[in-house]
Order: sequence, then C-alpha cells, then structure tokens
Amino acid sequence: MEVKVMKNILGENDALAAENRRLFREKKICVVNLMGSPGSGKTTLLEKTLSKLAGKINVAVIEGDLFTARDAERIERHNIPVIQINTAGGCHLDAAMVKRAAESLNLDEIQLLIVENVGNLVCPAEFDIGENFKAVVLSITEGDDKPLKYPLIFKESAVVLLNKIDLLPYTNFNLENARADLQALHPQIEIIETSCTSGAGIDAWADWLIGRVN
Amino acid sequence: MEVKVMKNILGENDALAAENRRLFREKKICVVNLMGSPGSGKTTLLEKTLSKLAGKINVAVIEGDLFTARDAERIERHNIPVIQINTAGGCHLDAAMVKRAAESLNLDEIQLLIVENVGNLVCPAEFDIGENFKAVVLSITEGDDKPLKYPLIFKESAVVLLNKIDLLPYTNFNLENARADLQALHPQIEIIETSCTSGAGIDAWADWLIGRVN
Repeated sequence: MEVKVMKNILGENDALAAENRRLFREKKICVVNLMGSPGSGKTTLLEKTLSKLAGKINVAVIEGDLFTARDAERIERHNIPVIQINTAGGCHLDAAMVKRAAESLNLDEIQLLIVENVGNLVCPAEFDIGENFKAVVLSITEGDDKPLKYPLIFKESAVVLLNKIDLLPYTNFNLENARADLQALHPQIEIIETSCTSGAGIDAWADWLIGRVN
Repeated sequence: MEVKVMKNILGENDALAAENRRLFREKKICVVNLMGSPGSGKTTLLEKTLSKLAGKINVAVIEGDLFTARDAERIERHNIPVIQINTAGGCHLDAAMVKRAAESLNLDEIQLLIVENVGNLVCPAEFDIGENFKAVVLSITEGDDKPLKYPLIFKESAVVLLNKIDLLPYTNFNLENARADLQALHPQIEIIETSCTSGAGIDAWADWLIGRVN
C-alpha cells in the first residue's frame, strides 16, 4: 500500500514538473537542481559561484530549507532575486513548491535559475522539479564510499562537485576510488573538484554553468 | 492529501514501534537509534565503540542502508551479531523493518542493540523504531548551523556526538554557537565531542552507553 501511495504522489509530481519544464523552456531559463548532504557546502559554493557569474549572466536562486531562511539571507547579499521555500520538516523540494516559488520571480529577466534543494542525499533525487540538470555536491569529508551507498543521486546528476578538496590531506578519502565508482555508476558524469577555502575549481564550475546557459 | 497519507503511515508505524518496545523491554535490551548525515562518521564511530564495549556488555547491531552491505561487513569483523537492512532506496528505517531484523537475532543474549539508521538528517527522526534513545552524529565539517536547520533530530535525540573534532582547526565551525543552539533546542541533550582519528570522546560515549544498559 505504501508503494502505491508513493507512485501516485510521484505521478502527480511528474505532471507538475513537466509544466515547470515547459514554462522554463518558453522563458529560455536554464534550471539547475543543486543537491547534497547537509553540510556538504552547497550554500557557500553557491555564494562563490554567484560572485563568479556576476555581470556575465542573470541568475536567480530558489532556496529550499526545512525551517530557517538563513541560506536565503546569505544569497540575498549578492543582490540577486532569491525565494525561500520552507518545507516545514519535509525532506525534499517537489515540483509544486518550485512552481509556486517561480511565480514570485520575474522570469523574463532570468537566464539561470539555481534551486538549492534540502540537505539530503536520498529523497531530493526522487523528485523531478522541472530542472534541466541535477548537480550533486559531495564533501570529501563525507567519505569515498558515498557514491555506491547513495547511487541514485549520482546516476541522476550531470555533474558532481567534490567539495572541500582542501581537507583531503586530513581525511582517508581515496580520490581514485571515488572517481572510479562515479564513472562506473554514471559514465557521462562530469567531476569537478572544488574548495571554497582555496577557490579551487570554482571557475571550472562557473564555466560549466555558463556553458549550459549558452 | 499527502499529509493525510503520511499520518496513516506514521500511525501504523507507531503501533509497530510500540510492539518492538514491549519486546525489547521484556528481553531487557537497551536500543539506541543512531542517526546522522551521510558521511558524518556513524559506522567508523560504531566500530570504535564496539572495540571499547567488547568484554563489557553484549552488543548486537542492525545496519540500515539503501543498497549495499558495506557497513554490515565492517561491523561483522568485530565478531558481534549484525543484521543488514537494505531499504532499496528508502530514506529511513521504520518499525516494521526493525521488527523483521530483530527476529533474526538471539534476543536472549543481547544487552545493547545499536541500530545504525540510513544516512539522513531529516526522515529518520520522524519514524519511531521502538528504541529507548535516539543519538545523532554531527560531523563538525557539516557546519555549526545544522542544529537550527534540522531541529527535529536534535530535539528527539538524547545525545549528540560532535564528531571529527580533530578537523576543527581546518573549519570555521564555532563550537560555542553550536553548543548554545543545541541547548536552546533541547536543554537536556548530552553533548560529546568525538574523533575516531584521535580517539577523543570514545570512552565518554562508551561509558554513556554502558550507563544506559545498567
């Protein structure tokens, strides 16, 4: 019974996601669904990315969070449109939430919409929100076993950001193993090593996004 | 409608959790539900804990994971009974899964049952599995904003393990802020700083567990 209910919810979500996708295509907006564990560094990475994209493309952000508006406040300082969605305990964003949030944005002035999902390596991957691309942030402090343990999110994502790469010397994370596992799961996945402390990889990630917009 | 369905599932879960709790009490088993983000260090911490508890109390472990049996294989090396639950993509353990797993254990020979939940800071906190205590592992690499961003799991947990404390000098994690936020959310919460690299806090955590068993 539980499975049946889940399927119904997902079917309903897929229909709304298709509506979102049609609207975003019509408005020529590239939408990225940014996912990752709590504390993988999504918001800090997003802030660094916004600094790189400033003056190059018009960006807006939708922030997903359980309760607080802390992340949206951080993004707002970059002088770009930002909408906070509070899921009130819900573990992922869905297409209906993104649809409502998008109604508050001036879609004619946006080229790139980055949706930062709720911190969670499981549920967000199951819910299409109408994005063009999924991106997943994996902090190397989380361990190199995560791709095989949480395969769906890595199979679904066009790009994985191996973040906090500056902490590599202090962990037992094996980069070669992680790369091999990622490539076995999803041969087309793009792998970018990033650090918001050293700045490594932020240009490559910003260029990847600009490439998707153009 | 979604909320209604969720309530039905939770009601059913609560009834099964109560059954589990009755059984565990009858068998005089203390059950700890160990939760935390992917990569917070739950399994490594569990391994270190088992080494400390060896010869002192009889422990068994239930491992929750989406697909792999990697964690159970690591626990098995410590020569204690371990059961792997694969949720096949499900984002949390529920009482029915734990009930089935417990049927494969010899409950007359166990004093402490540690259930390592699926890596997720959201959903596992919502599902009672019949445990006596919830414990949450927060790696300091995840950032000091996590208690306020994911309040439920910290409100529900009797103890929080601030893990990977050896990496503190390389992060901007503010221990004072985290402690203040945790105490504001849940004044009775026990806070133990741990590191599996330096060994810090493992004795305190093992003693906490032994105290709960006795």
